Amino acid sequence: MKILVINCGSSSLKYQLIDMDNENVLCKGLCERIGIEGSKITHKANGGSWSEEVPFPTHTEAFSKVVEMMTTGEGAVVKDKSEIGAIGHRVVQGAEFFTKSEIVTDAIIDKIEEIAPLAPVHNMAHVQGLRSAKAVFGAETPNVVVFDTTFHQTMPPKAYIYGVPYEMYEKYAIRRYGAHGTSHRYVSMAAAKFLGKDPSELKMVTCHLGNGSSITAVDGGKCVDTSMGLTPLAGVLMGTRCGDVDPSVVTYMEQKLGIHGQEMADYLNKNSGLLGISGVSSDKRDVEAAAQSGNKRARLAEEMLNYQIKKYIGAYTAAMGGLDCVVFTGGIGENDAPLRKEVCENMEFFGMKLDEEKNKQRGADIIDLSAEDSRVKILMVCTNEELMIARDTLALVNG
Amino acid sequence: MKILVINCGSSSLKYQLIDMDNENVLCKGLCERIGIEGSKITHKANGGSWSEEVPFPTHTEAFSKVVEMMTTGEGAVVKDKSEIGAIGHRVVQGAEFFTKSEIVTDAIIDKIEEIAPLAPVHNMAHVQGLRSAKAVFGAETPNVVVFDTTFHQTMPPKAYIYGVPYEMYEKYAIRRYGAHGTSHRYVSMAAAKFLGKDPSELKMVTCHLGNGSSITAVDGGKCVDTSMGLTPLAGVLMGTRCGDVDPSVVTYMEQKLGIHGQEMADYLNKNSGLLGISGVSSDKRDVEAAAQSGNKRARLAEEMLNYQIKKYIGAYTAAMGGLDCVVFTGGIGENDAPLRKEVCENMEFFGMKLDEEKNKQRGADIIDLSAEDSRVKILMVCTNEELMIARDTLALVNG
Repeated sequence: MKILVINCGSSSLKYQLIDMDNENVLCKGLCERIGIEGSKITHKANGGSWSEEVPFPTHTEAFSKVVEMMTTGEGAVVKDKSEIGAIGHRVVQGAEFFTKSEIVTDAIIDKIEEIAPLAPVHNMAHVQGLRSAKAVFGAETPNVVVFDTTFHQTMPPKAYIYGVPYEMYEKYAIRRYGAHGTSHRYVSMAAAKFLGKDPSELKMVTCHLGNGSSITAVDGGKCVDTSMGLTPLAGVLMGTRCGDVDPSVVTYMEQKLGIHGQEMADYLNKNSGLLGISGVSSDKRDVEAAAQSGNKRARLAEEMLNYQIKKYIGAYTAAMGGLDCVVFTGGIGENDAPLRKEVCENMEFFGMKLDEEKNKQRGADIIDLSAEDSRVKILMVCTNEELMIARDTLALVNG
Repeated sequence: MKILVINCGSSSLKYQLIDMDNENVLCKGLCERIGIEGSKITHKANGGSWSEEVPFPTHTEAFSKVVEMMTTGEGAVVKDKSEIGAIGHRVVQGAEFFTKSEIVTDAIIDKIEEIAPLAPVHNMAHVQGLRSAKAVFGAETPNVVVFDTTFHQTMPPKAYIYGVPYEMYEKYAIRRYGAHGTSHRYVSMAAAKFLGKDPSELKMVTCHLGNGSSITAVDGGKCVDTSMGLTPLAGVLMGTRCGDVDPSVVTYMEQKLGIHGQEMADYLNKNSGLLGISGVSSDKRDVEAAAQSGNKRARLAEEMLNYQIKKYIGAYTAAMGGLDCVVFTGGIGENDAPLRKEVCENMEFFGMKLDEEKNKQRGADIIDLSAEDSRVKILMVCTNEELMIARDTLALVNG
């Protein structure tokens, strides 16, 4: 079966068509500036790449154009949209209502809309995407929703309840939900398979490090804790997000800066992190280059990130009562060998010992970076959220 | 030499007179409701206790009454105030200006006032106390200030800088300062001595758990990280304080509750923690009793606290690259055997193994709670911040 994987933002639509017979990607692309002047599509297939400016007043026009690109011209990969067996949609927030992926019904779309206050920008975009997909593909093509949060729904209350009055949880659903769950699930499964183990045998810390970063404790294949929280602001230092800070830092800055609520949330989400500390860039590669040429604040940003990752590995080892495997994934986790080296330094107490030569390798989807005598396996695993979504979609439509 | 140890709050004055020849406490007491109607003193000495309502318009009248109680009547312990060799004052916030205890000068009092925005209620009370002590005792009695923060001044920037824009540190001195430093210093030194080691040989996690709680990583006798932050709001769940939360929880609650800034800070400081979760009490003993009689939220509060302490032990072990000793101190740390048991459960990976029988012992200032085969020493150490202040004071006035 061919499965179309969709990730809708408020003004974007990312897609990938996967042939599930061999898990090969047939085409992928991006519609940008939906609802904004100058909207365009970029489509990659058959070794080529095509860009075209097209008006996309809504996600529906974007979906129609995606169908056109997949079925006609040099970038065509199927004869007709009826060849697409199902559509898998990424959804950021599933709250406590969704504990697994689901085949889409109208009631499910309504529920995703209902819980949108917990992730307003993302969930409303997903709802638009779901409605547009139904309009363009019709009732004969099943849609499946795969949530970033469901993998984290196995956390115990001691890990997900915050120390604020309990009414905040009861009234406003304020709790830790986590994010990147599809990635953590994918890499933890891939790592177990690579090690020839069943996930149930392993205590794992998966570090998804990218522009947004989250770290998860996976005990026996189940998430028991994760660093992102109510929103993706918490955890380690990110591109422009502050990560964990004393909550009084928020209220103190409010008094100094004269902003609060959503405006302060934006400040913590967009002006902070690697960018705010280094003053150079939100891109880790720029920060690393600046640090190497002597920029002290850039170096501090690196040190903070490395140190915070170390502390999460330690904390989650305590949470699980052991550690068998540490996984690095995401744009930074997969490519930033110096970061991995520094995170693993001085972690022999935890049984972690990196092989510096293996750490420099590239090109494979999974690389074992551990030294021969490392008791804990240290792996680089390329994440593939789209494939995870496609697999869930296939499993559900196959019943 | 006899040293008077002083801890001034905005409407209180706690005192203790210590004979440094044998470190015995000669008397102690408390002046309450200073500047408020119904002010009174309680004085304990020579096996007796006296309470008296006295008008205390300011800390100066309170100091004069303390002198009267120490020198006259049945509670007298010295003939004349001139027998008091020096006065040691606790100061909550020393910011980055103070890295050790200091003999008080006018410039030092001015500096403590200057950094008061970082701890307005406490530092202004300390300034009042210092000026009143000088007025009552005169220039011949030296005053020494001992800061809660100086022990934490050895933290590296990667541990004390927050992920918010760096300008927040430069402009407003927003960073991690920590608290309970005098207690962490005292118990880490006492633990090293008890183990027959030099502090420089040990990697220690000291858990000061009370109504306010903080956990510190002490590597070679120096603090390298601590759980409290800009203010004493951060870290583990406390009596009424929330501890660590996703910063977006703060801004999200602001939008739900319509409060922000200082009002939100008060909510996080006074309505949260054990009280906010359990709905029962801010006192751990009440929460434990409620949990034992089946209150689920009370049990959740306990589980959260125990779990968070575990995670800090793990995180700080990673920060130090090892662990030799864990110390429990403070009202909860010294007395709550069930908490210690749960925190140490399933921590064999870290080399921690509690002896359940030893864990039930009481009555000594230091008890080794570790099992024979525990690689990490687990100690209960009764803290004594007053004695630490008196020792610093003696050392400074002796030159």
